[in-house]
Amino acid sequence: MRKTISIGSDLRIGGGSFVVMAGPCAVESREQLCATADAVAESGAGLLRGGAYKPRTAPGSFQGLGAEGLDLLTEASRRTGLDVVTEVLDPRDVERVAQHAAVLQVGSRNMQNFPLLREVGRLRLPVLLKRGASATITELLHAADYILAEGNESIILCERGLRSFDSSTRYLLDLAAVPVLQQRTPLPVVVDPSHGTGHAAFVAPMAQAAMAAGADGVLVEVHANPDEALCDGQQALTPPRFAKLMSQLEQMAPLFGQRLSAPGRAQGAPALPKGPHASTTR
Amino acid sequence: MRKTISIGSDLRIGGGSFVVMAGPCAVESREQLCATADAVAESGAGLLRGGAYKPRTAPGSFQGLGAEGLDLLTEASRRTGLDVVTEVLDPRDVERVAQHAAVLQVGSRNMQNFPLLREVGRLRLPVLLKRGASATITELLHAADYILAEGNESIILCERGLRSFDSSTRYLLDLAAVPVLQQRTPLPVVVDPSHGTGHAAFVAPMAQAAMAAGADGVLVEVHANPDEALCDGQQALTPPRFAKLMSQLEQMAPLFGQRLSAPGRAQGAPALPKGPHASTTR
Amino acid sequence: MRKTISIGSDLRIGGGSFVVMAGPCAVESREQLCATADAVAESGAGLLRGGAYKPRTAPGSFQGLGAEGLDLLTEASRRTGLDVVTEVLDPRDVERVAQHAAVLQVGSRNMQNFPLLREVGRLRLPVLLKRGASATITELLHAADYILAEGNESIILCERGLRSFDSSTRYLLDLAAVPVLQQRTPLPVVVDPSHGTGHAAFVAPMAQAAMAAGADGVLVEVHANPDEALCDGQQALTPPRFAKLMSQLEQMAPLFGQRLSAPGRAQGAPALPKGPHASTTR
Amino acid sequence: MRKTISIGSDLRIGGGSFVVMAGPCAVESREQLCATADAVAESGAGLLRGGAYKPRTAPGSFQGLGAEGLDLLTEASRRTGLDVVTEVLDPRDVERVAQHAAVLQVGSRNMQNFPLLREVGRLRLPVLLKRGASATITELLHAADYILAEGNESIILCERGLRSFDSSTRYLLDLAAVPVLQQRTPLPVVVDPSHGTGHAAFVAPMAQAAMAAGADGVLVEVHANPDEALCDGQQALTPPRFAKLMSQLEQMAPLFGQRLSAPGRAQGAPALPKGPHASTTR
Repeated sequence: MRKTISIGSDLRIGGGSFVVMAGPCAVESREQLCATADAVAESGAGLLRGGAYKPRTAPGSFQGLGAEGLDLLTEASRRTGLDVVTEVLDPRDVERVAQHAAVLQVGSRNMQNFPLLREVGRLRLPVLLKRGASATITELLHAADYILAEGNESIILCERGLRSFDSSTRYLLDLAAVPVLQQRTPLPVVVDPSHGTGHAAFVAPMAQAAMAAGADGVLVEVHANPDEALCDGQQALTPPRFAKLMSQLEQMAPLFGQRLSAPGRAQGAPALPKGPHASTTR
Repeated sequence: MRKTISIGSDLRIGGGSFVVMAGPCAVESREQLCATADAVAESGAGLLRGGAYKPRTAPGSFQGLGAEGLDLLTEASRRTGLDVVTEVLDPRDVERVAQHAAVLQVGSRNMQNFPLLREVGRLRLPVLLKRGASATITELLHAADYILAEGNESIILCERGLRSFDSSTRYLLDLAAVPVLQQRTPLPVVVDPSHGTGHAAFVAPMAQAAMAAGADGVLVEVHANPDEALCDGQQALTPPRFAKLMSQLEQMAPLFGQRLSAPGRAQGAPALPKGPHASTTR
Repeated sequence: MRKTISIGSDLRIGGGSFVVMAGPCAVESREQLCATADAVAESGAGLLRGGAYKPRTAPGSFQGLGAEGLDLLTEASRRTGLDVVTEVLDPRDVERVAQHAAVLQVGSRNMQNFPLLREVGRLRLPVLLKRGASATITELLHAADYILAEGNESIILCERGLRSFDSSTRYLLDLAAVPVLQQRTPLPVVVDPSHGTGHAAFVAPMAQAAMAAGADGVLVEVHANPDEALCDGQQALTPPRFAKLMSQLEQMAPLFGQRLSAPGRAQGAPALPKGPHASTTR
Repeated sequence: MRKTISIGSDLRIGGGSFVVMAGPCAVESREQLCATADAVAESGAGLLRGGAYKPRTAPGSFQGLGAEGLDLLTEASRRTGLDVVTEVLDPRDVERVAQHAAVLQVGSRNMQNFPLLREVGRLRLPVLLKRGASATITELLHAADYILAEGNESIILCERGLRSFDSSTRYLLDLAAVPVLQQRTPLPVVVDPSHGTGHAAFVAPMAQAAMAAGADGVLVEVHANPDEALCDGQQALTPPRFAKLMSQLEQMAPLFGQRLSAPGRAQGAPALPKGPHASTTR
């Protein structure tokens, strides 16, 4: 029996509700975020993703806009009607980030940051928990147990690619993790083909493959202008490519017992024939 | 521009023709092979797979029936109308195996067995070249170059899973290899979800994901009685599960510009509404 | 030019001073800690290691004694004259742990816990930074940059094993990281053969190999009674085995331009002929 | 109880006899081979290594001189008194190569080339079996079983590095494989730090570490002029660097119960004080 998790006011994930979480890797500016958020809402995304606090390998890299980024996410959320999923890095920031997010993301580098897991476990917001780049399925489930142990049962697991010896892709996306996890837990499982491959050309094939493997959603990086992105531009889809992917996912969904879940689209109602929805164009 | 390869008298792979290669891991007996071959033909498979020479980790394991296994494959081929793909391990066996096969398989352990690659390169039979368990995409393409250098251009590349630290699956199936390879070579690319996951429960999701990622075919182990298999029984589908998978792939194919390719089914004609085909029920 | 770092009142590491950091994985009780601390001091260890806050894969595992464990470490330090290296997991605990430690350890799971790196960077205590289980050398150096960027230049890098597909050892100890790091940074480099192999039988060979590869120290788990350890007992040396390892390292050191560094042993003076030192036998 | 294997007329490996196998990656010319062979003999190497048949990733790379290379190896062997270890790739070449070699090498790409293992198993020459780049210890031992099953018990196992995600080194040298193998088999175990690291700068530290970990020998690439090598020049030591390494290994050996084994040096007699030996200085 698959678990269904409620997100925000009218979204669900799991048990036949497939959620596309889309947006830029990092919030860079009002202009960049709004252009991207409008586009993904227009194409039928279910949640707006975007990072205000970015974990970067080197200290000199762009680290995100922080609190200002959170405010911009809230603004974009009001504008598009899409709720927000955003990452929290520091246990001391959990409460602040939670005021701006419908889903709190714990990134792959923090999958075993146990103080952080405990903090997000104390809230009653859904948590998107990303698998570490060399974590086993069992370790991912134990990390989820840290959140559960604090009382938060709304956990969405995310496969986002493993460390690999082949530089053809940035990480090695372990799509078999989807059926493996579904055999071991009722929690929803989503896939991040953007980090998982690191190249825009491979994102749509792997997002489609994720749905075909049984995933409950995908996390897709979209940028209104990838060439100027401050972070991971080479893996971001342009809005037209994202729209094309959404259309393909819409067509595939019924074959896999799925319905794309998005605000304003009646849950459980048949998918609308066309991508753009009234509710996302306010 | 994708390359299409002709197999046997009336089969094609690549460029919109999707081939399901199905059958037992190893040829064990006439009874076992015929029961399985009949079942996969009935469900619409395109090629019969089965090993007469088996590369086994330990010398005490069942090593295949050898020449007797080749004869049984030929018999099963005549019975079902399905051409055969089977593995060759030793450069000294290439000519003999070629008399019984429409496609010669070079297994993952032999991806860099250069004398063997040169021998199969001298024939004009299609070669199914499996990626080594820790080979990069570039190394796989270089291995194909050894075959090409001898004049054989009919090469089908196969992703079958990489060595992994997580024992949840037997190997780590790298489905992103499909779009990566298609960006770098026009050769057809197929996926082996049976070895790639090692568990029957994960084969159908990953075969579907392979088609959704853009693959030109899949290699699926089927056994009439998996519990009694001499080799890899835990990853073999039963005939009913295989039939169900075929039905799902048939439904998916049009969404991905594919048509299931099988003997007796007019190439390029619309897929038949039901699985069983006249030519496979003699 | 190799960097030498001062630890506590009279210890140095790097540039020819080799430090053996030894003690239990976790502080379990006064009795356990004292018995182990006495033994490692007696054999000539340079620092006492022991965890008060333990990062454990599953929430139900023993998580360490916390503040009580820190007090016991301070007590054992006074008793033996050995300064303490202990792990800090939570940025909110850094100040407290720093009051009990001469070296703060950032564990492999936290190598990219950037808020924690920044906190330990604000102190002026040496930091032992462990390489993540799938981190590249470049990522390890970037993590050190986070500490450096806050002004703390006393960083000791530690190789402790990488994720591997072979369960013969718990991790795959990458000893070549020692010369690779020494080519790229003047910071001292130590090796943890206990976590790196996971089996007591392999600790001494790999500790010796670490010195032969050019390391500036080793981190060795010792337990007065490994069979009753609450954490990682199978990889702990008994005191007699540890004494034997120390004796072998003492003999090897001059061949590699090293001198074992321990409190009460004059820095730069020739190694004493026998293991036990006056200062550690009070 | 460790097994000792006799090589050629008067060399032994295992049980306290440590053999350094040195020479160029590939035999390129009489001049290159003789200059290198003279140098390694002069420094006290025990066996001359050099490839006549080279397994190369791409078909256009230099593939070795073949039969001509074997003749040159025999000539260099007569000149220096060093017996030869060289690789065989094709089961059809085993007899020919055996006429020129005291030890037959099966390379890492062929660790599971079962027809080749069976052929070398039928001879009574020692076999140097290299671990595959992603083979487990258990798989390596099973590969040795294929040789043993044919009656050849003179097997030397070789760790030469595993596939890795970190390009700092060419492979990831698994030195812990030495004590792990020694716990599971009495066969001698040697280490190849040249392929294992891929950079000349790291070869000496890792060769020393191999001895300190308990290995029975090392395989070291030496080239009289690395900058002009046709194959793997960046990992070859120059003769002076090799001489320096030999001197360090000579000094280390007694600490590890080892004696360097070389022709003309009385087996079991104390190591000579200086590197060059009468028998190698004609």
